[in-house]
Amino acid sequence: MKNTQIILAKRPVGVPGPEHFARREVDVGSPAEGQVLVRITHWSVDPAMRGWANDVPNYAPPVALGDPMRAFAVGDVLASKHPAYAEGDVVEGLLGWQTHALVEGAAIARKVTETDLPRTYALGILGLNGTTAYFGLTESCAAKPGDTVVVSSAAGAVGSAVGQIATILGCRTVGIAGGAEKKRQCLEEFGFDAAIDYKAEDVAEAIATHCPDGVDCYFDNTCGPISDAVMTRLAQGARITICGTAAVTEWDPIPMGPRVHRQLLIARARMQGFLIFDYKDRLHEARAALAGWLREGRLTVREHVLDGPDAAMDAIGMLYRGENMGKLIVAV
Amino acid sequence: MKNTQIILAKRPVGVPGPEHFARREVDVGSPAEGQVLVRITHWSVDPAMRGWANDVPNYAPPVALGDPMRAFAVGDVLASKHPAYAEGDVVEGLLGWQTHALVEGAAIARKVTETDLPRTYALGILGLNGTTAYFGLTESCAAKPGDTVVVSSAAGAVGSAVGQIATILGCRTVGIAGGAEKKRQCLEEFGFDAAIDYKAEDVAEAIATHCPDGVDCYFDNTCGPISDAVMTRLAQGARITICGTAAVTEWDPIPMGPRVHRQLLIARARMQGFLIFDYKDRLHEARAALAGWLREGRLTVREHVLDGPDAAMDAIGMLYRGENMGKLIVAV
Repeated sequence: MKNTQIILAKRPVGVPGPEHFARREVDVGSPAEGQVLVRITHWSVDPAMRGWANDVPNYAPPVALGDPMRAFAVGDVLASKHPAYAEGDVVEGLLGWQTHALVEGAAIARKVTETDLPRTYALGILGLNGTTAYFGLTESCAAKPGDTVVVSSAAGAVGSAVGQIATILGCRTVGIAGGAEKKRQCLEEFGFDAAIDYKAEDVAEAIATHCPDGVDCYFDNTCGPISDAVMTRLAQGARITICGTAAVTEWDPIPMGPRVHRQLLIARARMQGFLIFDYKDRLHEARAALAGWLREGRLTVREHVLDGPDAAMDAIGMLYRGENMGKLIVAV
Repeated sequence: MKNTQIILAKRPVGVPGPEHFARREVDVGSPAEGQVLVRITHWSVDPAMRGWANDVPNYAPPVALGDPMRAFAVGDVLASKHPAYAEGDVVEGLLGWQTHALVEGAAIARKVTETDLPRTYALGILGLNGTTAYFGLTESCAAKPGDTVVVSSAAGAVGSAVGQIATILGCRTVGIAGGAEKKRQCLEEFGFDAAIDYKAEDVAEAIATHCPDGVDCYFDNTCGPISDAVMTRLAQGARITICGTAAVTEWDPIPMGPRVHRQLLIARARMQGFLIFDYKDRLHEARAALAGWLREGRLTVREHVLDGPDAAMDAIGMLYRGENMGKLIVAV
């Protein structure tokens, strides 16, 4: 039995492309005591992988050259010598871009118990993306019924979940996305009350139109000019969650932008950084709520599934070029 | 009996100076039903007055030309036809730069009950400055024992109180002030663990030296380059309170500065605007704590008292030029 891997072959500068990866076949071993063998069916593609491919530690150490690319993945247990897992279990974790993972039990993040739902949800709406949206909105943004919630990257895996959860919580939602098709998605698929195409509209003017009483919560996935525009329309007591900074590609040296201090002071607003890793002991709360809403048909999930291992090689690039329409996944 | 007033004679651009004020004597009336006549003994000089003198509403409407300059003041009740106040009471409120205030009872903020302490404290450590320091530090910064607390304008009326309260709470304190004499005050009079003279030292380097484990709380009275330097040294979970922006003189258009988003994200830090008016129903809590510490000799207050009404005309300028050494007050 062969294990097909996509390995990091060359250290990228900026966004990794096909030239930085290679395909390799190795033998699949069998589990020693405490180990589990997983046949992986789906790989996740996430913005954080860009950092992992670089040579400097980010939230995690860099991936070593020659190793399978670090990635969240879901699959079936083929064989187990670990008491927590049995053959046939569906499991999820940082199992990497490979078809077979022979790992210590501790390397598995969890057993996927929502087996009535598509297993790919474990990588998106029930994984990093959905739980980030849930706690970022409910805890960091402290969204409450009646709030006006603005979301950037609103058609993305996190942003689309933020908008829908906000609607469920009784908020008014305004999504900001790039392009007419993503704007349509925001309105028709994800149910935002209003949407702004930042490539075609003046964001500050559009925010003024759609948020006449100001912005109570801003879930910021982009930083940059979009955020600068939203900041001019804060309501008293606004909460801004900084979840990502996708629009700013270089942070060394720190780029200049409009100072936020006076806007925060006048609105008595708060701006804070959010990372889902700080909620690792509470992920089950978010998953339970999200799975409930999925079963009730109150959450729409859009997935963009690439076919086969080789498609992974340019997948991170697709994400950064905004070419994906929904949660990006590789079916292996 | 004559009432001596310092009136706003001319609308200032920028910081008001002597040319914007005039002295006027008018007759003192006597209280009608519900009114109180106060003989004022001390006027406060506060940064917020700069905004009140301008033609645009800030937190309060502008002072009308020809009116006594709006200011906090303390004095003795000479006559009262209001049930809450009696002759001989010491009272405080926005009574203006005048020697006599004939006002509705509702215009008085409170009866000063800490009559064992200097009455000028009602304008500073037991007034706007001390209560701002107290809630800004305990609520907005959520300072806790063991935290490293950095304060800008550390020798000022708010900053010196922040540093001392933080010490009482069991924090390690680092004050940033301008000049050798203010640095000495921070260390010797206000008991900061370390102090930085931003005019003579590299603030980022000095913060690195004095805060080896990073900054847990930053009480920001300045904005500008000092704040930019502190932001490079945030500890995980840092809390930044924006209380004032004294170092930035012009906010239209919004000036550029280093983007704070990535620093907040990596440290999962929060930055928030603070205004004491939001705590108006809880001021008694702060006053009780502060008066207790004053009586125990645990708080040092430095006042800079100017002599006579005419000295008020350039007092706001003194404040903005950093010429005052302690809470600026006019004895009338």
